[in-house]
Amino acid sequence: MALGMAEVGYVLYRHAMKYNPRNHKWFNRDRFVLSAGHGCLLQYVCLHLAGFQSVQLEDLKRLCKMGSRTPGHPENVVTEGIEVTTGPLGQGVANAVGLALAEAHLAARFNKPDAVVVDHRTYCIMSDGCAMEGISHEAAALAAHWKLNKLTLIYDDNHNTIDGPTSLVLSEDISARFKSLGWNTIMVENIHDNLSSFKEALMAAANETKKPTFIRVKTLIGKLSAKEGTSKAHHGAFDEDEVKKMRERVNWVDRDQFHVIPMVYREMQIQTDHGERLEKEWCSKVYNYRSKYPHEGAELDLLLNGGLLPGWENALPKWSTSDPLDATRGYSEKCLNQLAKVLPGLIGGSADLASSNKAYLLGYHDFSQPDSPWGRNIRYGVREHAMAGISNGVALHGGGLIPFAATFLIFSDYMKNSIRLSALSHAGVIYILTHDSIGLGEDGPTHQPVEQLAGLRAVPRLLAFRPADGNETAGSYRVAIANRDVPSVIALSRQKIAANLEGTSADEVERGGYIVSDNSSENKPEIILIGTGTELSLCEGTAKTLRQEGRRVRVVSLVCWRLFDRQPAEYKEKVLPSRVVKRVSVEAGSSVGWREYVGVEGKVIGVEEFGASGAYLDTFKKYGFTIDNVTKVARSLLSE
Amino acid sequence: MALGMAEVGYVLYRHAMKYNPRNHKWFNRDRFVLSAGHGCLLQYVCLHLAGFQSVQLEDLKRLCKMGSRTPGHPENVVTEGIEVTTGPLGQGVANAVGLALAEAHLAARFNKPDAVVVDHRTYCIMSDGCAMEGISHEAAALAAHWKLNKLTLIYDDNHNTIDGPTSLVLSEDISARFKSLGWNTIMVENIHDNLSSFKEALMAAANETKKPTFIRVKTLIGKLSAKEGTSKAHHGAFDEDEVKKMRERVNWVDRDQFHVIPMVYREMQIQTDHGERLEKEWCSKVYNYRSKYPHEGAELDLLLNGGLLPGWENALPKWSTSDPLDATRGYSEKCLNQLAKVLPGLIGGSADLASSNKAYLLGYHDFSQPDSPWGRNIRYGVREHAMAGISNGVALHGGGLIPFAATFLIFSDYMKNSIRLSALSHAGVIYILTHDSIGLGEDGPTHQPVEQLAGLRAVPRLLAFRPADGNETAGSYRVAIANRDVPSVIALSRQKIAANLEGTSADEVERGGYIVSDNSSENKPEIILIGTGTELSLCEGTAKTLRQEGRRVRVVSLVCWRLFDRQPAEYKEKVLPSRVVKRVSVEAGSSVGWREYVGVEGKVIGVEEFGASGAYLDTFKKYGFTIDNVTKVARSLLSE
Repeated sequence: MALGMAEVGYVLYRHAMKYNPRNHKWFNRDRFVLSAGHGCLLQYVCLHLAGFQSVQLEDLKRLCKMGSRTPGHPENVVTEGIEVTTGPLGQGVANAVGLALAEAHLAARFNKPDAVVVDHRTYCIMSDGCAMEGISHEAAALAAHWKLNKLTLIYDDNHNTIDGPTSLVLSEDISARFKSLGWNTIMVENIHDNLSSFKEALMAAANETKKPTFIRVKTLIGKLSAKEGTSKAHHGAFDEDEVKKMRERVNWVDRDQFHVIPMVYREMQIQTDHGERLEKEWCSKVYNYRSKYPHEGAELDLLLNGGLLPGWENALPKWSTSDPLDATRGYSEKCLNQLAKVLPGLIGGSADLASSNKAYLLGYHDFSQPDSPWGRNIRYGVREHAMAGISNGVALHGGGLIPFAATFLIFSDYMKNSIRLSALSHAGVIYILTHDSIGLGEDGPTHQPVEQLAGLRAVPRLLAFRPADGNETAGSYRVAIANRDVPSVIALSRQKIAANLEGTSADEVERGGYIVSDNSSENKPEIILIGTGTELSLCEGTAKTLRQEGRRVRVVSLVCWRLFDRQPAEYKEKVLPSRVVKRVSVEAGSSVGWREYVGVEGKVIGVEEFGASGAYLDTFKKYGFTIDNVTKVARSLLSE
Repeated sequence: MALGMAEVGYVLYRHAMKYNPRNHKWFNRDRFVLSAGHGCLLQYVCLHLAGFQSVQLEDLKRLCKMGSRTPGHPENVVTEGIEVTTGPLGQGVANAVGLALAEAHLAARFNKPDAVVVDHRTYCIMSDGCAMEGISHEAAALAAHWKLNKLTLIYDDNHNTIDGPTSLVLSEDISARFKSLGWNTIMVENIHDNLSSFKEALMAAANETKKPTFIRVKTLIGKLSAKEGTSKAHHGAFDEDEVKKMRERVNWVDRDQFHVIPMVYREMQIQTDHGERLEKEWCSKVYNYRSKYPHEGAELDLLLNGGLLPGWENALPKWSTSDPLDATRGYSEKCLNQLAKVLPGLIGGSADLASSNKAYLLGYHDFSQPDSPWGRNIRYGVREHAMAGISNGVALHGGGLIPFAATFLIFSDYMKNSIRLSALSHAGVIYILTHDSIGLGEDGPTHQPVEQLAGLRAVPRLLAFRPADGNETAGSYRVAIANRDVPSVIALSRQKIAANLEGTSADEVERGGYIVSDNSSENKPEIILIGTGTELSLCEGTAKTLRQEGRRVRVVSLVCWRLFDRQPAEYKEKVLPSRVVKRVSVEAGSSVGWREYVGVEGKVIGVEEFGASGAYLDTFKKYGFTIDNVTKVARSLLSE
């Protein structure tokens, strides 16, 4: 791709995009996403030539080497000038839609007729592979539905996949497909001989006011090489002989490897200097904006600084044991709606389950163009994967938006790779995942998550919460919102909780695990019952019974494993003393991972098979999630 | 949907489809998939009226109740007459493509000009939700590419989603989209007043010879109810008052609940009797086929009986310690190609990574219509999710096909929900997942699986193998193939293994874990090193060093956790004696779950962060996967 798309890269970085290599985070820059991330060499070369300090010639020489700034796929956390982390195909398309959505939304909120402070375009290069992936279809449908006219998708139509010509697997009319979705579509037949055809296409895109633009560029993969136009050029380095022949073909024989003639740098420098001027102009524009529109200016500044107004945490509701009982998804709704008032960047939505997820910001309208682009509720339709990929784009846009994305916990499966990329790319997306166990009842095993939490807990960096009641839900939000470069999953119940517990605490959530109740002294309980979510109250109920029988029982909430794991050894020892080997964990999900906390002699009450369709209390009973059963297990352990 | 699509259900079950309720497994029946599985009531009613014994009136009364044969979404393992398990949206579309592919493939292999023994259609009802999901786009693209003309997709165009009118989230021209993919598209404007328009559409679909057919049927959701045509009719039961009004509207006031007038049964019975006749005719046709084409007849019989010729296991290659070293994906290629010769049902492919996954059946051609529908390699393009969903359809078709589906282990994330459904619906798909750790090297963290295996191991029923060398790879295939109602994941390395180990065994794989080497006696090693995959050789290398130092060391391969967990307690105690608490696990992936096997005092050498781009040996070193480091950890444990 670095060869076949060289012209595209050149036109974008030299002629089309505004950016400032001397400040890669300039807010009003155009955003560029290489969804076909395996072509990263193209972007690294462009960044280098355009003057980004992050990619020196030395870095190009160390392509794909350990510790280099030029890894095998673009990573925003490694290389300045890279906006998002791509590689898994199709993801970048969704990210780009998110970036464009963020721009459209912020522009609607802040721009004034006399002061346009948010105004940039988003460009994305996608491959045939990206186009085949379902996520790109979902994202493309939304981009058109939302009328994201400042989004330009450039399709590298090179007729080759890894396994051979695209004709092996692709027979669609892709232009007609994008048109059917509502895109402006343009064909560039011959970019290699006619650069201006591509420039004209970009100009047409810029003039489009209602539709995103899809530019289909016919290219020759591996251009100028002996493998030109064949799938053999898709990947792998050329050998010496091939490089020699290529150099002969372009009259480049006597040059050193990695030699760039000064003229090239000078040519690219023009855009660099231009970008610096543009940023300066923008800065003075914002300066004037602040004085003319102090209220909006303050909010814009807040967002540009991350969006967290000091004291925002105080908006979170608190619950007492006497408050009406609700499902944790209900408490989540209250948290979310209180937070919306103090966090101007909070924006998000659900994959057609807003009412079930209770993830709607009341009074904040739907994001919709042209009607209400300032709306802070995003309706994703039944498109979980795109929702997560778009949320990553929104989070990484840099405009201080705090995206939430809601669906059932089971459907985290549909967006798993995007969730993973949230963690890898430091996108602080908040995943609100309701219907979090077999407790969802009637919808049955296809909708009952069993193993999803186990899988999510294993994702590096991700914080997975399963709060037990109102206060733990609020505590989960507090940690999730505060950690802007870490994604969070908040797993919430469909069914009502049995109690807002005396011993739970919003503050303690940040430790991941803590003692909820204990009638022992000197840190010597006979048994520890460990629960999460709605099952914590089963632990409490069991503890009550056992204590009446004279037992010394501790109940521990393990609301977020990763946060608990990070606590100092002394704290962990305090909560789960190693001498107390009689432990029972109670969680209506896979037992995978629980041994870490219950030890060899402990018992895990979990779900090792698929769930079943039935009323919630019936499913809970079937799988042993009753106070009676937990008490039985605990007693048998105590009598050992 | 049960109301809005009632006419569609009636026409399909009464007029269009051939099936025999008295033998729901009749091989040559038409297949029906309700991709919009939440509308299961529609299908249950159709099955009941059509005479399937699986759905009695009593079953309809127990809709969504614990233990009923009418769960909240259709489950093929619960209710006879249901072909596949649906509910997660879009999955059924992929399943249907798989069913149609199986038919097309088997028809090409077995039909003769004078004896058509494989000849059925596949019908699928999809919702707007299904259409929004990426998996349906991927599957629809493939259906057209493969020219599956005997597939008919019926789109319930009811203009409503859970959250409101579809206009909130959908603005595409869906007919144009399917046309752009290569489908025959038909619009049925008014089925409620004009049943014949739908019948005509079905006939047009039957006459189409090159394209699958997409029939867009405009319907009124919740027809006849007060919620008719609104999103409120999407889900939830009607209350008594609503039911009363509805009954008044259709003049049904005096009837009991759950009353079916005899005329309705008689009407549906016509098709039932017809189906029974059709099966009889088919049986005699197959009888004649056997005598006229004894070779093909024997193969067809074999497939109809599950496809496993006695002794097929003997085809699996064996390796000795002196054989050339390869990656486990290389050994997998050899297994697969040997198996292809003895298993006529083995068919499958890769998501554009056939060469990397080494998952191509040499000499067996690509499945392609009209050129080579008998081809046993399926090229999926970059469409992992559809690949898995289609494989489920192929597995559940009943024609004895044994589907394999290959991609990188990391991209199991893209198809996680379909993998889960393989397990739930008893589809024996074999997932060949290569590049199974940070050991894949240069492609970096976006492509390096860290937590995928942990998540897959938690999927109920699924068998997840991570073989260490040639013989364990062969053993994994043996178990995977033999278990036709359980899906398997075989995780394979990109990089060459260090050795075909002396102590590994294909036979032992079925126990999940076993002793590879040991220099202790009386089951009293000082330390146990537990490894999987390419890291097992690190355990062996470490053991060698420690044994030279006089230590009694056991090495255990834990190639499949679930199979080991299922062994009798005595066997597990023999392999991992509880008195030996000094244990080290070595696996280049998340540590989640390993505590189960190393115990509280053991050490887990795993990967708790994302990987890195670099040469394989550099990544392995960075994360501690060297004999030196494992030895260091083991020594520190021994000296405690």
